[in-house]
Amino acid sequence: MTDIPALESFAPGLRTLVFGAGGGIGAAFAAELGTHPRVARVYAAARSAEAPWRFDLRDEASIAAVAAAAAADGPLDLVIVATGVLHTGTLRPEKSWRSLDAAALAEAFAINATGPALIAKHTLGHLRRDAKSAFACLSARVGSIEDNRLGGWHAYRASKAALNMLVRTCAVELRQRNPGALCVALHPGTVDTPLSQPFQGGVDPAKLFTPTRSARAMLGVLDRLNPADSGRLFAWDGQAIPF
Amino acid sequence: MTDIPALESFAPGLRTLVFGAGGGIGAAFAAELGTHPRVARVYAAARSAEAPWRFDLRDEASIAAVAAAAAADGPLDLVIVATGVLHTGTLRPEKSWRSLDAAALAEAFAINATGPALIAKHTLGHLRRDAKSAFACLSARVGSIEDNRLGGWHAYRASKAALNMLVRTCAVELRQRNPGALCVALHPGTVDTPLSQPFQGGVDPAKLFTPTRSARAMLGVLDRLNPADSGRLFAWDGQAIPF
Repeated sequence: MTDIPALESFAPGLRTLVFGAGGGIGAAFAAELGTHPRVARVYAAARSAEAPWRFDLRDEASIAAVAAAAAADGPLDLVIVATGVLHTGTLRPEKSWRSLDAAALAEAFAINATGPALIAKHTLGHLRRDAKSAFACLSARVGSIEDNRLGGWHAYRASKAALNMLVRTCAVELRQRNPGALCVALHPGTVDTPLSQPFQGGVDPAKLFTPTRSARAMLGVLDRLNPADSGRLFAWDGQAIPF
Repeated sequence: MTDIPALESFAPGLRTLVFGAGGGIGAAFAAELGTHPRVARVYAAARSAEAPWRFDLRDEASIAAVAAAAAADGPLDLVIVATGVLHTGTLRPEKSWRSLDAAALAEAFAINATGPALIAKHTLGHLRRDAKSAFACLSARVGSIEDNRLGGWHAYRASKAALNMLVRTCAVELRQRNPGALCVALHPGTVDTPLSQPFQGGVDPAKLFTPTRSARAMLGVLDRLNPADSGRLFAWDGQAIPF
């Protein structure tokens, strides 16, 4: 098992905010940060009614409220967006252009691209300015257009490509406003969660990560990245993935 | 002025279908194809009530009807999707993440990504199989994530990145089903149309194209491309643009 990364590139006493803390990877991020000696605070935001910090990706006011509450007593060192859907009742990974469906595409764009963009809108201005800080969205290697040789999964792929563009576009502005801050997209690897469950058949078991292993690996990547790396897509092992 | 390209890489008597023939570039495509000696037929589909072939990007049945009618008496050699919006009443190019708006993003995705994908769904299966054929969507250089160094225009950029992914994903499947066919995205250059009108201030007049010049240049690109080029984004001058 990968160790918990030291997070020493950030100022001590990190104040962190995780959106999607009810999901497999998001819960692992919140748990890892919650026991980390350098972390002072974890705001774990989730959609479920029991969550202390509730939000819905389709409800901008709920996102704004969580962001404002988390930032009320100081700037944020780390914001992680671990939301996202691949399949729901209406959204299923397409195998052919014949399955393209406007409603499924709209849902994928709303949840995987627009929702994270709204989180960026309400959190980027709260990132710490006097030390390194980072905003990271979970994207996916299958959201790389250049890397797409297998086809299929049209809506999911397109929504992640759109997310990658939104991350890049926000990174350009963040560099101007807060040069010590990062805004990146991350590929978590194939993680054993409900999202990937129907598609794990062909995956090498050694490459099927637990959520904890994936979250630790991505925290390690964020620890190693510099502001010059902002606006790019990185895999769990730190490799930059072409768009 | 660029000459009309010969289109000699296609079989003579081309049957062509242009979606968005009411717009500046789409109208130029329809006009150029309509007077071309190698072209037998131009189906010019547009949104306006006066168009002989009417469709709406948000109405899949209307797209399916136009595609079926155009393909009723034979396969199509060339399908061009020249639709797209940059600004409307609700959609305005953002200058900052502060302007990100869920409704504007949804509109951009619906018109610039989902609509063309639905056109692909209903036309790709009608492309000629016994000679070169092509499906081309107007995309844009600002839809390149890699090329994005200026930021801004979040919704437009994200919707074009999503479109590029959809084109790529369809191209993978098209290669399997119809190896002589192309599916590509095209950057028309900066063209003097209502879409670009508010943003022409900083453009070198020598690089501000008439719709006719842009359409001729892109027809030349399509004439020169091979099936191996399928799934990529090409500029009006034939240059491949990274995603």
